[in-house]
Amino acid sequence: MLIDDLRAVLPEDRVTADPDVLRSYAHDEAEWAPYTEPAVVVRPRSAEEVQATVRQCLANGVPLVPRGAGTGLSGGANAVAGCVVLVTDRMTEIKEIDPVERLAVVAPGVVNDDLRAACAGHGLWYPPDPASSPWSTIGGNVATNAGGVCCVKYGVTRDYVLGLQVVTGTGELVRLGRRTAKGVAGYDLAGLMVGSEGTLGVITEITVRLRAQRSPEATVAGYFDSTVAAGEAAAAIRAAGIVPSALELVDRHCLAAVDAWKNMGLSADADVVLLGRSDAPGAAGEHEAAVMLECFEKAGATFAVQSSDQTEADALFAARRLAYPALERLGPVLTEDVCVPTHLVPEMLARIETAAERHDTQIANIAHIGDGNLHPLLITPAGDDAARRRAQAAFDDIVADALALGGTVTGEHGVGLLKQPGLAEELGPAVLELHHAVKNALDPHRILNPGKVFPDVRGVNSDE
Amino acid sequence: MLIDDLRAVLPEDRVTADPDVLRSYAHDEAEWAPYTEPAVVVRPRSAEEVQATVRQCLANGVPLVPRGAGTGLSGGANAVAGCVVLVTDRMTEIKEIDPVERLAVVAPGVVNDDLRAACAGHGLWYPPDPASSPWSTIGGNVATNAGGVCCVKYGVTRDYVLGLQVVTGTGELVRLGRRTAKGVAGYDLAGLMVGSEGTLGVITEITVRLRAQRSPEATVAGYFDSTVAAGEAAAAIRAAGIVPSALELVDRHCLAAVDAWKNMGLSADADVVLLGRSDAPGAAGEHEAAVMLECFEKAGATFAVQSSDQTEADALFAARRLAYPALERLGPVLTEDVCVPTHLVPEMLARIETAAERHDTQIANIAHIGDGNLHPLLITPAGDDAARRRAQAAFDDIVADALALGGTVTGEHGVGLLKQPGLAEELGPAVLELHHAVKNALDPHRILNPGKVFPDVRGVNSDE
Repeated sequence: MLIDDLRAVLPEDRVTADPDVLRSYAHDEAEWAPYTEPAVVVRPRSAEEVQATVRQCLANGVPLVPRGAGTGLSGGANAVAGCVVLVTDRMTEIKEIDPVERLAVVAPGVVNDDLRAACAGHGLWYPPDPASSPWSTIGGNVATNAGGVCCVKYGVTRDYVLGLQVVTGTGELVRLGRRTAKGVAGYDLAGLMVGSEGTLGVITEITVRLRAQRSPEATVAGYFDSTVAAGEAAAAIRAAGIVPSALELVDRHCLAAVDAWKNMGLSADADVVLLGRSDAPGAAGEHEAAVMLECFEKAGATFAVQSSDQTEADALFAARRLAYPALERLGPVLTEDVCVPTHLVPEMLARIETAAERHDTQIANIAHIGDGNLHPLLITPAGDDAARRRAQAAFDDIVADALALGGTVTGEHGVGLLKQPGLAEELGPAVLELHHAVKNALDPHRILNPGKVFPDVRGVNSDE
Repeated sequence: MLIDDLRAVLPEDRVTADPDVLRSYAHDEAEWAPYTEPAVVVRPRSAEEVQATVRQCLANGVPLVPRGAGTGLSGGANAVAGCVVLVTDRMTEIKEIDPVERLAVVAPGVVNDDLRAACAGHGLWYPPDPASSPWSTIGGNVATNAGGVCCVKYGVTRDYVLGLQVVTGTGELVRLGRRTAKGVAGYDLAGLMVGSEGTLGVITEITVRLRAQRSPEATVAGYFDSTVAAGEAAAAIRAAGIVPSALELVDRHCLAAVDAWKNMGLSADADVVLLGRSDAPGAAGEHEAAVMLECFEKAGATFAVQSSDQTEADALFAARRLAYPALERLGPVLTEDVCVPTHLVPEMLARIETAAERHDTQIANIAHIGDGNLHPLLITPAGDDAARRRAQAAFDDIVADALALGGTVTGEHGVGLLKQPGLAEELGPAVLELHHAVKNALDPHRILNPGKVFPDVRGVNSDE
């Protein structure tokens, strides 16, 4: 039996079928995505223990769902029937920080902010900064190719992954990628693993590229009467050739929810706040801040200012980070994650408003607006099924609108379960067929997080 | 018959079996890599013509070898028995340059420098700059994940590829990747194609990310008595936290060869010249140049100077670019491309000297030293078989040394044919097995550049 087999090869405290534990690892933060309870939860402490777990899943024909902190927003870590959930939360070692080569080697369960803090001690910086950074793990960040606030200037998790150690779908423990600055030795299988949501391998170690710590950021804030006006301000900044180190949109629903929770005194009379930052050193940073301020004003900001107070500026970004959990306190939140060409952001924001009206659904907005990556947050009263159906219809409309504008159904949260219909629409059958071919090649026994990203067409236990 | 089938579906001037033409497309610039003459050369003008060619290869069970300008240095574009060589040199349209989204869409045969020039007209910059940029194509650059001088600060071709249109191994014409700034919709198949050397798909269109044009560069030059001292200067620059926009090593063999050809008056008394550049704006750039100069001096430069003359500075970099063709005039050149952790560059350079002595082989050096990417150039008198055998032994030693130092057998030139033994050593059997699985998945009929990157274990015409 599966659990006995696992206990035979792993230390006793690694394996549990305690109902409370099973329940607590049944799903991630994606409201509405389906899940079940796992059969077993395994919390390994080493790559070898991960490998032993995968091998037992192979021997028993049982699916394995890897997860980090479970902060995902697409259902990618949701348990499937009869599965083992493998939790990396005990694999938290920062194995190496090399200030000369500017890289770090970490176990998958290292929390993003912990890595960032450790790097700061060496004058180094790990840029990817999803809003979940106080909780989410590097392994989960890699599995979903997490983004964040700094992407607009510094790129996403993929841009920082040099190498991976993974357990493959056939139970081998292998190293992919490299430690050198450059390298083209074979296919980029490390890159292929990034964003594959645990469906192609289980990550047991990550080597990331680091940057030198940057200059203190200058922050500008602008208040707007409409999301569309704010979108126009963002487009103007891009057209001016500025690449801010952050350009975020937060609407008043979010600010009010954060105030109601944390009493930060942020609520604005305006509909929308834009937050821009520049980390260019010295005069260049002042210049960029001044250009952003001018763009805010020309786009019709009712109030715009460069913050002279770092504490105040940090509070604004903290509010941005807290928006999602603050809104969740009000009821189930369905999180969108579309990304459109930046010049179509105003159009996309207008379509989101239309969808809200059409389907009588409250939609709050946060957005990495400099990237065109929008997070409309659809809020429904708990237990109101009719509202939930209306919200789902609004969600579907937003996905369709993003595709119609040449965008993508997911900018940084991943496909998981929630975005599978959108993915099929975005890729088309021929490209989806390539996905199946790659999945079959690297997970021939179909035990790695089956049914995520795209439907598991052949069934979990099919061995061809 | 193959050629009749191709002529039936393509306009007449696209298909040829003229012996002179076949000969001229038989191999790339990799001296010593095996090749044969192709059966047919096809020079399509559109993605649909590429697709028609692939489909005829499928129908006839004939391998297809795609190539751009043929400037590759690993034999990746060398013809194999009975193959069709598909040349992209007539697919040269720059389809779009979008200054707001900062992207360009190009056909695969667009020459790197032509794209760079077109971008400059919009105030934009396409960074990847292999030394072959006056001749090599974007399609070839993508297929090999080409690097260049600017990588040390701006990354490689992969970092600029947003989306691809490709013809798959089953003859489908598909789009991979995206046009948006971010996106995680499914596996990163566009990334997987980058650097796959034509073995997973034939690229018919490329969407690349662009950057704003940068500030004029400040250039510093330093002369050293040994490659090892120069390596120590480079390590010191990295340790000082500077990220130069270029950091190149050229030795006196290269400078003398360029002078002998172009009479540029560059030959130094010193053994090695280091060229550093900073494109940081204003005072930051002056600061970086000053730090580099100090690092040169502390590492024992016999002469070091910040160039006040842009023409002189450009001439030094032009000489760097011309080093390879200049050396080729002296005899067959076997080009190495190892990449090691940057702090081990002095050690690697010392080992290269040892290999030269041990095997009585002349080795010139150029290097993207800031990345740890070294290009020892092994020169042999034409027709001297004994010298060639000695050079091959030195080549093998250098590869083994790079692996022993935790490096890779290819930093930017690709595996092609020359680096297959090194690749097998670097990856090991389990990871090589993953490569075969991916290859089989995406090229099930094994017609796409078979035998490149790794041996075609099942034979060209095997249909599983």
